[in-house]
Amino acid sequence: MSTADLLAFQRETEALAQIAGRLGWDRETMMPRGAAAHRAEEIGALEGVLHARRTDPRIAAWLDAAVPADAAQAAQLRHIRRDYARHSRIPARLAQELARLTSLAQGIWAEARARDDVAHFLPTLHQVVALKREEAAALADGSNTGLYDALLDDYEPGASADWIAGVFGRMRPRLVALRERVLAAPAPEPLRGEYPAEQQMRIARDLATAFGYDWTRGRLDLAVHPFSSGSGNDVRITTRVNEADPFNCFYSTIHEVGHAAYEQNVDQAFLFTPLGRGVSMGVHESQSRSYENQLGRSRAFTGWLFRRMQAEGCALNLTSPEAFYRAVNRVQPGFIRTEADEVHYNLHIMLRFDLERALIAGDLAVADLEAAWNDRFLQDFGVMVDRPSHGMLQDVHWSVGLFGYFPTYSLGNIYAGCLMKALRADLPGLDADLARGDTSAATGWMRDRLQRFGALREPRATVAHACGFDPDEGPLLDYLDAKFADLYRL
Amino acid sequence: MSTADLLAFQRETEALAQIAGRLGWDRETMMPRGAAAHRAEEIGALEGVLHARRTDPRIAAWLDAAVPADAAQAAQLRHIRRDYARHSRIPARLAQELARLTSLAQGIWAEARARDDVAHFLPTLHQVVALKREEAAALADGSNTGLYDALLDDYEPGASADWIAGVFGRMRPRLVALRERVLAAPAPEPLRGEYPAEQQMRIARDLATAFGYDWTRGRLDLAVHPFSSGSGNDVRITTRVNEADPFNCFYSTIHEVGHAAYEQNVDQAFLFTPLGRGVSMGVHESQSRSYENQLGRSRAFTGWLFRRMQAEGCALNLTSPEAFYRAVNRVQPGFIRTEADEVHYNLHIMLRFDLERALIAGDLAVADLEAAWNDRFLQDFGVMVDRPSHGMLQDVHWSVGLFGYFPTYSLGNIYAGCLMKALRADLPGLDADLARGDTSAATGWMRDRLQRFGALREPRATVAHACGFDPDEGPLLDYLDAKFADLYRL
Repeated sequence: MSTADLLAFQRETEALAQIAGRLGWDRETMMPRGAAAHRAEEIGALEGVLHARRTDPRIAAWLDAAVPADAAQAAQLRHIRRDYARHSRIPARLAQELARLTSLAQGIWAEARARDDVAHFLPTLHQVVALKREEAAALADGSNTGLYDALLDDYEPGASADWIAGVFGRMRPRLVALRERVLAAPAPEPLRGEYPAEQQMRIARDLATAFGYDWTRGRLDLAVHPFSSGSGNDVRITTRVNEADPFNCFYSTIHEVGHAAYEQNVDQAFLFTPLGRGVSMGVHESQSRSYENQLGRSRAFTGWLFRRMQAEGCALNLTSPEAFYRAVNRVQPGFIRTEADEVHYNLHIMLRFDLERALIAGDLAVADLEAAWNDRFLQDFGVMVDRPSHGMLQDVHWSVGLFGYFPTYSLGNIYAGCLMKALRADLPGLDADLARGDTSAATGWMRDRLQRFGALREPRATVAHACGFDPDEGPLLDYLDAKFADLYRL
Repeated sequence: MSTADLLAFQRETEALAQIAGRLGWDRETMMPRGAAAHRAEEIGALEGVLHARRTDPRIAAWLDAAVPADAAQAAQLRHIRRDYARHSRIPARLAQELARLTSLAQGIWAEARARDDVAHFLPTLHQVVALKREEAAALADGSNTGLYDALLDDYEPGASADWIAGVFGRMRPRLVALRERVLAAPAPEPLRGEYPAEQQMRIARDLATAFGYDWTRGRLDLAVHPFSSGSGNDVRITTRVNEADPFNCFYSTIHEVGHAAYEQNVDQAFLFTPLGRGVSMGVHESQSRSYENQLGRSRAFTGWLFRRMQAEGCALNLTSPEAFYRAVNRVQPGFIRTEADEVHYNLHIMLRFDLERALIAGDLAVADLEAAWNDRFLQDFGVMVDRPSHGMLQDVHWSVGLFGYFPTYSLGNIYAGCLMKALRADLPGLDADLARGDTSAATGWMRDRLQRFGALREPRATVAHACGFDPDEGPLLDYLDAKFADLYRL
């Protein structure tokens, strides 16, 4: 019964969890389509092993006797204690019911979305919400946190719904005002044309390299929904190709490189410990978003990308770097969150946050969700949702029980705003670098100030340590106002 | 404590073992090179879980109380009983030492081979042999089998060294006589030219399809050493490309399709049970070898391949199907087993079998191995080994502790000879089919007579059931004599 035993046990659990992640990558990129049921059985067996380890009663005894040797070990023990408490609070029956229901619910949601048939999904969503409320109650047991906070804690430890609601409440009017001013201005010309897949992939590889992706410890493949997968020395990214829209491929790639850089750059001494990966969804998203938006969609960097596309022989309809910059950053109202520009994106998130918080609190019935969604969309976006697949059926999250996940996307943007404010203050030559396609000073700053620490500190403390100030929404809003006022000549 | 509990436990173990296989595939095909140590830690954790499950003392109690419901369950219990006995007999300390030593030894062997430096490898090989003898003694404990038989049993249950020695003893003089007659005859013209990788891969895909590979439950990738991986509904194959030697790519592909077909065609009811995969290395090799050689290198099928290469626009130096057939089957003395033709291949195996049997028995010292190898090679092949990498350092097997594995390659050839004799008797139209590139009758025969049964029967019984007679070396030798006498006009 020593701390070393506990840490060795944890290390094996981390390694097994990495394997589960690798199987997920394989399923989305390489797995033959006829292997789905086969793979589900494999993953079920591995999840069974992981669950048994995560709730192993020896952990409690080890924790009671544990004495950390240093600050890093103390942080590890904090993670282990927290995870053990969370896993132990959920009854095995509930965990099984949730696993069974959500795997079923995802298929039903996909059918409902394809058929634009809300009624087909509602009974299942009702069951999912009921089980997630039960899970939240079990997790919140003995603490003063509310149900939603208990779920949020899985993705963004330390955040609270009240804090997020305050931040979002201050952001929403400014974003609505900005979108109205932008949309009243003349729209830039969009990119048009056909861009062959091989051409896009060559440029995507160059973009990954430009943003510091370490190819000796990763690879790039295609997937329907781009993602990054793995930690430490095996971090793989994916992108997608639409021949009419190369920006989708390019900015998906840069986004995933941001996630991957966080994982690749964690201190090697932390690997296979609870510190050896990104600390939260929000901080992770701060990396992907700042790489994609603040760096990748900057005037300076798009100038380099414009010339890179010209050098590749792309037949561009846009003839100047400035026109290209404006096309990359074109603001367009739209129903779909994943296609939203920087101005609209957070409004999509706020809508989901308010609705899912009300669902979990019991203040909104599943039966009333569609009406609530459509009302709110009309308020914030000025248009009526024309079909459920453009409204409440568009995202997979709720079907698989991801309540409390959505706000982390906007937290990522907020953190990215803070990080870039601090980074720009430290790197006055940033735009000159980016104009040459050189991100090394910026990505090096992120690595040294944030990425290498992994999950050593709590999420907000991680960002605060990097920035030198406590994060809030101000820098993001200032950045958006300045960028789009300039770009749209407001 | 019910049979159902045991089978459910076993099913999860099988699923976890499949995952280990998938990680092995990934390592050889997809893994970034910087991830090797990372992956080793993941695999170590998974192997730890598997070892704990395979030696779980509950298995003994479950087995004591087990009552099979039918013949298939009885066969499953037989496998579980045998595997549990084997795993339990090896002390944990020995298993760990073997794992540590062999992973180290493989690297040392690779260095020694690259430098042609036997002395660099001998101390390590000495340790491996000592530990394998210790393992064999532990495995043989309480039984009458010899040390070598105890090791052989891992790869070919039910086979004995004495039986193999008898078979090999009868084969060797006939093979030596055949090679001498063949080499005295005029040699056919070899294939020459350059065949671009994409061209080879298009044909390789067609070959896999022609041999019944199910692409919905598999995929083809490149690897340094071609292999097949996985069971049931996710069976992946690999091949390699040498632009000067397309036959390497083509026949590696067909060979791996033979292995894959055995796994893909096992009765779906057997999946995730001990019956749900090939029963032994020898029976597995009977499938890969009969697909590759007896079917794929037949005059009829090479005629189809000749026209397929012409249709692809290959610039062939051979102008007739008969010249192409003779080039495919060209007999050439050579030092390297993996490059050997059908006439020489088994002579390579017999040499290794006799030497490794003597090593394990303690009749041959590791220090004397090189001289013994070179003497024997001169006897059987008529040439002196010119360097160790062409001799005793050529194969990885001994470095990783695979003693008892080599003879299964020749058992595969022997079984393939028997299977093809029975298959030809049942399918008088075989050559007409193969000349059209249609293997469906032949591969269907293999599926119905052998592959679908998986590991239901013991290895030799599996082959005997398919053939209708007890397997021996006769049909293989008759096939080789007839084929090469005709081909070389002896």
